[in-house]
Amino acid sequence: MLSNIRIVLVETTHPGNIGATARAMKVMGLSKLYLVKPKKFPHLDAVVRAAGALDILDQAIITESLTDAIADCNLVIGTSARQRTLPIEVLNPRQAAVKASSEINHKVAFVFGQERSGLSNDELLHCHYHLNIPTVKEYSSLNLAASVQIIAYELYQAANSSSEAKIQYDELASANEMALFYEHLQKTLIDIGFLDSENPRHLMDRMRRLFNRARLEKIEANILRGILSSFASSFAKAS
Amino acid sequence: MLSNIRIVLVETTHPGNIGATARAMKVMGLSKLYLVKPKKFPHLDAVVRAAGALDILDQAIITESLTDAIADCNLVIGTSARQRTLPIEVLNPRQAAVKASSEINHKVAFVFGQERSGLSNDELLHCHYHLNIPTVKEYSSLNLAASVQIIAYELYQAANSSSEAKIQYDELASANEMALFYEHLQKTLIDIGFLDSENPRHLMDRMRRLFNRARLEKIEANILRGILSSFASSFAKAS
Repeated sequence: MLSNIRIVLVETTHPGNIGATARAMKVMGLSKLYLVKPKKFPHLDAVVRAAGALDILDQAIITESLTDAIADCNLVIGTSARQRTLPIEVLNPRQAAVKASSEINHKVAFVFGQERSGLSNDELLHCHYHLNIPTVKEYSSLNLAASVQIIAYELYQAANSSSEAKIQYDELASANEMALFYEHLQKTLIDIGFLDSENPRHLMDRMRRLFNRARLEKIEANILRGILSSFASSFAKAS
Repeated sequence: MLSNIRIVLVETTHPGNIGATARAMKVMGLSKLYLVKPKKFPHLDAVVRAAGALDILDQAIITESLTDAIADCNLVIGTSARQRTLPIEVLNPRQAAVKASSEINHKVAFVFGQERSGLSNDELLHCHYHLNIPTVKEYSSLNLAASVQIIAYELYQAANSSSEAKIQYDELASANEMALFYEHLQKTLIDIGFLDSENPRHLMDRMRRLFNRARLEKIEANILRGILSSFASSFAKAS
């Protein structure tokens, strides 16, 4: 799916941004880079900032016009920092990524304008949708490669949307093991006089809340009980 | 809400990445940058890449240790590129941003390791959660400032989505209060002979993992320290 998606950079000024874009793409599984009339390319700065993503630079397709770069695309999404008066639907990065990844049989282009000026109104008219990355009003100077990184990140998320982060716990203590631990804790706290045996509830409730929140592993419950036993025996020996 | 959140860069090698981080933060409304032992800072490369975000560089706080940088924080989230064996809950950027922005009364740190090596296991043990930015397996070389950009983007998204439930915790212990608790625990365990003073690390790492997972409230940390003191004094009286 990501293989249907291309990144198109229009008249990029700084070759470093082209390299950083290649790297931003590659970590998120994008590989097709189109460069419309880049000011300086190839260039050492691009190579340096690309780190290990040289293959993407090597395979980049250079065109003379935006029209050429998007010729075979079915869906073209153009980034726009400013709120334009053009009555074209504006998507945020997540919406754009979902849309792009839902069109699995289509070729999709994400188009990014020049660093300072962005896409011209004329270029934006080539696009089916506009894409605006929300920023604070006072400082909207998002770096070009950083914009690509955000979009590439959202595309990768959309492509893998079923994968949630999994928690890898060791085996957790059972309710019964926890009950034994709480008993042990309460007895020890009473023995050392920390807990009022007439009215142990308030503190014990707190302890329960704390350790339940932590969700103790078996081995952790055992270690804590070992500590309690060790207190008891050193206390007994001393007295 | 974003004003409670800081970005902490640990031992950053390239000053250009510090500048690009400042810019990535500023466009998304973040302003608090902490630098733990930066290799080269201040530096021209940082200024160049910061573009208009010089105020963030100027106000960056330089510390000698991660502990200092997070001392007053109640929630610490550390980025980790690799899947570690540490069984600490791993969040993706969106989950981390929602969590950070739901804790409106807490100071939150997002911690990023060195460019090549990332955070050490020891540094990761200071964190309540790990944060993994999903990338393709074959090439996971996400640039440092690009990582910050993704997180900053998600934080800005979360801050501007009113739909999330805000969690009202009781006041949580700060990193500094937790450090004092761990010291107290270690000392007590050594005194009663439960812990080998020559080699306290393994058990203490486990304890750290357990209590970081629980995220102690201030009052809970105080109760636990009260229990430790009570053990010590009943032990001393008895002997």
